[in-house]
Amino acid sequence: MESITPKEDPMTRVTAYAAPREAAPLEKTLIERRELGPNDILIDVAFAGICHSDIHTVRGDWGPQRYPLAPGHEIAGTVAAIGDAVTAHAVGDRVGVGCLVNSCGECRSCLRGQEQFCLEGAVFTYGSVDRDGTVTQGGYSQQVVVTERFAVRIPDALPLDKAAPLLCAGITTYSPLRNWNVGPGTRVAVVGMGGLGHMGVQIAHALGAEVTVLSQTLSKKDDGIRLGADHYFATSDPATFKQLRGSFDVILNTVSAVVDLRSYLGLLDVGGAMVCVGAPGEPLEVGVMSLIGGNRILAGSNIGGIAQTQEMLDFCAEHGIAAEIEVIPASEINAAYERVLASDVRYRFVIDAATFA
Amino acid sequence: MESITPKEDPMTRVTAYAAPREAAPLEKTLIERRELGPNDILIDVAFAGICHSDIHTVRGDWGPQRYPLAPGHEIAGTVAAIGDAVTAHAVGDRVGVGCLVNSCGECRSCLRGQEQFCLEGAVFTYGSVDRDGTVTQGGYSQQVVVTERFAVRIPDALPLDKAAPLLCAGITTYSPLRNWNVGPGTRVAVVGMGGLGHMGVQIAHALGAEVTVLSQTLSKKDDGIRLGADHYFATSDPATFKQLRGSFDVILNTVSAVVDLRSYLGLLDVGGAMVCVGAPGEPLEVGVMSLIGGNRILAGSNIGGIAQTQEMLDFCAEHGIAAEIEVIPASEINAAYERVLASDVRYRFVIDAATFA
Repeated sequence: MESITPKEDPMTRVTAYAAPREAAPLEKTLIERRELGPNDILIDVAFAGICHSDIHTVRGDWGPQRYPLAPGHEIAGTVAAIGDAVTAHAVGDRVGVGCLVNSCGECRSCLRGQEQFCLEGAVFTYGSVDRDGTVTQGGYSQQVVVTERFAVRIPDALPLDKAAPLLCAGITTYSPLRNWNVGPGTRVAVVGMGGLGHMGVQIAHALGAEVTVLSQTLSKKDDGIRLGADHYFATSDPATFKQLRGSFDVILNTVSAVVDLRSYLGLLDVGGAMVCVGAPGEPLEVGVMSLIGGNRILAGSNIGGIAQTQEMLDFCAEHGIAAEIEVIPASEINAAYERVLASDVRYRFVIDAATFA
Repeated sequence: MESITPKEDPMTRVTAYAAPREAAPLEKTLIERRELGPNDILIDVAFAGICHSDIHTVRGDWGPQRYPLAPGHEIAGTVAAIGDAVTAHAVGDRVGVGCLVNSCGECRSCLRGQEQFCLEGAVFTYGSVDRDGTVTQGGYSQQVVVTERFAVRIPDALPLDKAAPLLCAGITTYSPLRNWNVGPGTRVAVVGMGGLGHMGVQIAHALGAEVTVLSQTLSKKDDGIRLGADHYFATSDPATFKQLRGSFDVILNTVSAVVDLRSYLGLLDVGGAMVCVGAPGEPLEVGVMSLIGGNRILAGSNIGGIAQTQEMLDFCAEHGIAAEIEVIPASEINAAYERVLASDVRYRFVIDAATFA
């Protein structure tokens, strides 16, 4: 007869960096990770990127949150354990988790591979109510548990630290560039030379496009050219908008600030599209005649589905593309937030998860 | 030895209905048509449609004009004479002229068949400076002279009176429906059930789409259903916007009035496009998040090129589509203008050119 042992607590507590309340600095704390279900995998986080969205969310800029809240949706690590039914990943695999950790899997959007638009509600990596009713906690932590479908393979050619930001900044720029058919011969402008923009430049260049950076100043011009831009202009110079009138097939706008749409739409050739991946809090004014007078397009794009995220990682590995990063210990997260807000980072902070302990 | 005759005046004077000055009623007058050049054709106008743009233009709503100005860019008639080098048309052919009468023919836009976006400046059918420096006069007249490239064949299956409005209202709705790949399975909403809208409904239906009309009221519902709409909703009923949330792949907005973009963009499914063919004078407010939160698209569309106009006429003939019209004599033009402004026409006034004399 077997001995009777007390039922184990199915949860695992892991160290994380979380905001204890709105607008408070992040601090070290313990958060719970669920017991592995049959389709779950446990990931030892190696690196977690710092995305501007993390800051907005924990500070309550995008609405009230449940605290403590550990952000982080640019997660790279290795598989530490797998549930009984897992087939896509094995222990030791290098994997990434981006902005999404669950969806219904059955609706029209999920079946199209656009889990971010799940009609039942996509579950985001932190601060989101998961399908079991718990609130998700992000990647600023030692370990995460996700259903296998939402983990992607990180090719061996990509170092985990430089791969982490691809899970958000990479897919957010790759998806619109692919969906708008950017390729050889396409004239692409990337507006903004930050975490998103520096990925957009590399990806558009690797897709074969002629790439122009439109940044407030020329301060990052050398980086832009090194990363693959063919041209670099300052938007603070009004001559830019005259000189480049009608010059682009696609404008990828990575800037969340309010912009003068008329000026930017004027840069599009006939039939061209301006695709926004960052949203200002206030509405923009659009003169419909700016659209009609050239069959022009204003569009939005929101991250990308899981299959496309895998495609993006494979594409980046194949083309030797990754994020330009500054690795920091967890103790510097709050200082890094201030530097992100001051645009003082080239081009992404990545937290070394070894320092979470 | 031949007798010497005085040089003939190369111009032809024809009767037309023109505005003598801004905001004045149209009146009968004589206008000049140029001598036939080698590539020109002379057309005996049979019918001329009344487009809302005619009214805006002659009244100066869209900027100052040169007067007298004869409007009219929905022209159907027969070829009366041709220049020496004309190959596309023969005397007696049934032809139409739309919004365009000239372009450079050599720029990127012209070579793409988008003469409306000619980089040298498209020449519009009236009130536009032609490439020879003269100001164009429209179709409210007995005859017009155009270069052969800008006249399209009107298939025998289409009566000239019902074909006239296709030259603007037809191509303005056909072009975006085709360019945005409307076909079997596409869920299309047509906003506005006027001259443009009633063509949009017929064309979208003939393309195989599931068609919904969104009109201010249900007053034209019977017509909408008869013309091919599957569903018909009133935009004055707030329940419409709740019920139809996320329901459309393409919204064709034919309304020039200011609309609440957020409400309409909310009707689009993921990846859907709202295409505007009418422009309000004031800019609209667009919440970029409405676009990002579903990879949604806001676009404009401006008439269509000559090849696509021919394609549209052939398509309409094949599918038995034409405008619903009320034929009027020239003496009723000014009264008709008032009725157009009051939306009191089902669905297009067409002037019988026999009454211009």
